[in-house]
Amino acid sequence: MLPAPPAQIIRIPTYDRARQMVPLITLTTDFGAAGPYVAMMKAVIHRHAPGVQIVDLTHEVAPCNPGEAGFWIAHSYRHFPADSLHLAVVDPGVGTSRAIIAAAHDDQLFLAPDNGLLPLVLPETVPLYALAADWPGRRDWPAPSQSFHGRDIFAPLAAALACGRARPADIGPRLYDPVPAALPAARRNADGISGQVVTVDHWGNLITNIDAALLEDIAAPRVSIGHRDLPLRRTYGEAPPGALLALVNSLGVVEIAWREGNAAAMLGLGRGAPVQVSAGG
Amino acid sequence: MLPAPPAQIIRIPTYDRARQMVPLITLTTDFGAAGPYVAMMKAVIHRHAPGVQIVDLTHEVAPCNPGEAGFWIAHSYRHFPADSLHLAVVDPGVGTSRAIIAAAHDDQLFLAPDNGLLPLVLPETVPLYALAADWPGRRDWPAPSQSFHGRDIFAPLAAALACGRARPADIGPRLYDPVPAALPAARRNADGISGQVVTVDHWGNLITNIDAALLEDIAAPRVSIGHRDLPLRRTYGEAPPGALLALVNSLGVVEIAWREGNAAAMLGLGRGAPVQVSAGG
Amino acid sequence: MLPAPPAQIIRIPTYDRARQMVPLITLTTDFGAAGPYVAMMKAVIHRHAPGVQIVDLTHEVAPCNPGEAGFWIAHSYRHFPADSLHLAVVDPGVGTSRAIIAAAHDDQLFLAPDNGLLPLVLPETVPLYALAADWPGRRDWPAPSQSFHGRDIFAPLAAALACGRARPADIGPRLYDPVPAALPAARRNADGISGQVVTVDHWGNLITNIDAALLEDIAAPRVSIGHRDLPLRRTYGEAPPGALLALVNSLGVVEIAWREGNAAAMLGLGRGAPVQVSAGG
Repeated sequence: MLPAPPAQIIRIPTYDRARQMVPLITLTTDFGAAGPYVAMMKAVIHRHAPGVQIVDLTHEVAPCNPGEAGFWIAHSYRHFPADSLHLAVVDPGVGTSRAIIAAAHDDQLFLAPDNGLLPLVLPETVPLYALAADWPGRRDWPAPSQSFHGRDIFAPLAAALACGRARPADIGPRLYDPVPAALPAARRNADGISGQVVTVDHWGNLITNIDAALLEDIAAPRVSIGHRDLPLRRTYGEAPPGALLALVNSLGVVEIAWREGNAAAMLGLGRGAPVQVSAGG
Repeated sequence: MLPAPPAQIIRIPTYDRARQMVPLITLTTDFGAAGPYVAMMKAVIHRHAPGVQIVDLTHEVAPCNPGEAGFWIAHSYRHFPADSLHLAVVDPGVGTSRAIIAAAHDDQLFLAPDNGLLPLVLPETVPLYALAADWPGRRDWPAPSQSFHGRDIFAPLAAALACGRARPADIGPRLYDPVPAALPAARRNADGISGQVVTVDHWGNLITNIDAALLEDIAAPRVSIGHRDLPLRRTYGEAPPGALLALVNSLGVVEIAWREGNAAAMLGLGRGAPVQVSAGG
Repeated sequence: MLPAPPAQIIRIPTYDRARQMVPLITLTTDFGAAGPYVAMMKAVIHRHAPGVQIVDLTHEVAPCNPGEAGFWIAHSYRHFPADSLHLAVVDPGVGTSRAIIAAAHDDQLFLAPDNGLLPLVLPETVPLYALAADWPGRRDWPAPSQSFHGRDIFAPLAAALACGRARPADIGPRLYDPVPAALPAARRNADGISGQVVTVDHWGNLITNIDAALLEDIAAPRVSIGHRDLPLRRTYGEAPPGALLALVNSLGVVEIAWREGNAAAMLGLGRGAPVQVSAGG
């Protein structure tokens, strides 16, 4: 009943002889990590992509906040292996006629509802494709529920794309007028750069949409948030102990942190709070 | 020291030439996702099933609540690939003489303590098998601790079953009198269907044990919970903004939701709250 | 466009013909499980170690507490398959000149900052190696950020070690004077054994650094914590209902638990609380 296990080759379908890679899919949702809804999406992905590897990017996006989801994908995807697929299901429009869009960019694949999420990740020139109601690949899927397209549509479609059974251009017509970006970009104004807090991390650090590249021609930049005005530091260690700190973080954007505690709680600020960077005096 | 890596075949033991699949195991516990206890179970599973894939179903089951665990497995398992094994360790009886039971059903495998969990998942006709104290497969396992059978017994047994080294019928005698279901089933009464809230999801939605199939002969069904009486809707979008909403959710059961917030907090209700579905007037 | 998928062999680089195993890496951080920072580390690991398996040990270590991280790794690593690599990134010294150290012990690999974490896991006789600034394996990595060495240094180094592309002794010179253990060991005193609470688990159980082996010559041991004095039990079931309980837990250390609730909250105690074991009267 229990012989010594023979060494043996696993043969699993990979569908794409040219790549011969293990497909990898990342998941970004507002489902909360605790719940079984994420597991049901993984179930369907495993069923349609045997051997796939799945990485949870985050499931703690603020409910119905495609902007925050787009921010995290934009600042993470470059670190993944080539041909990874990034699936975001932050989908307040589920059950309406909102489109489902896929795209390829930078050797990576992207799949999300058409709600302003992907424009935060992709340049405008990247072609977007909208899933067609009569795409033949759907024939094998059960009829979708009204409220859980993550499990019933996004998961099997992500599997098909990640395995190379379909390319974005195969799933339907090109979409020329996607919903615009769900977050405003930081922009230049008379005083320097105006942006906002887009997410708050595990430690209470306030993370903004102000990219370091925008700061290059600002001399001795200072960061204003709430009633505070802070010099922009290069490292956490440069701030005096106990002080609030503004710096360019490891994502390459301006962050307001408090080494000894929770900056968001200390300032009483969170997502959406305005941030201004100006030249020092 | 760092030559170009040669492409190479991974040979791992799979034990079952007929299937040749990557084994997949799901985990459902009340351990909390944050803790290393789940990781220790995964360690033992990986040791006994090289190459296995593991999916966390949920680790946030209410402490010692086999009913909630059974509910989630019952409503999730069909989405997983054939031959997946579903392991539940919600085990208030650990250290007592409670049995450990395994079963095969619907092309899937199930493993849990005998505490009323599996009767919520499996029809009564499915044969259950209880792990024998002298099962030869146990010879290689270290002596189990008193309080962590998840790591010391369930994990290596799950690996053996998922890899096809043993079938449920191999591990011990048939169990004819399992502990009855840990949750009462919804049932018909004079007014319609009587059930209860079995779990509360990440958003505060109240999820009941009332299956949509029970509602087929109820005209214009209304749902009573707390002091509220709500029409049963088909989609979230049908309710007026700001209103509580009862609908059949993506699991196929009646759910009470509040799109703008947390229904459980708003009603002050949670697991065990009674729910009545009646014909409309 | 959608032919039946052909069964096919996955060829992925494994680098080590002798082992032919799927590499496995565990992650222990204080990043919080919710955040995408853990996912970025996984991204880099997958990029450098295709096919790797990753297990989250815990990401809920108290911020900047290498002692707690070391405790969990010390009590978990033996359960993992041979050749697993255990990576801990609890790194308050990131951006300073603190060393990064790797070691091999008990058929396992270990990688962490030099901050007193690994001395809690490894005997003093195990050779430690410090990553050299000019290690040739670093040539392919992008320039590291100031504040996220987990992603930029630890992740690709963990991949190289876990795949067998480098051994600990290859990465740099031997380190003879590591930072001492971040937690004091339990020790004998006139009354018996003196230790402390090192972590609090999901249920509020207080877990100490007092190993069962230290108790062997203490007759009828009693455990003092706060103003309580408790007999040491062998199982949870031995305590009267409603009572606090001291026992040797499944990790092999003394734990103070309350079956009906949260012992940490009931006692108002947490990490660092002193614990004394004495012979009974």
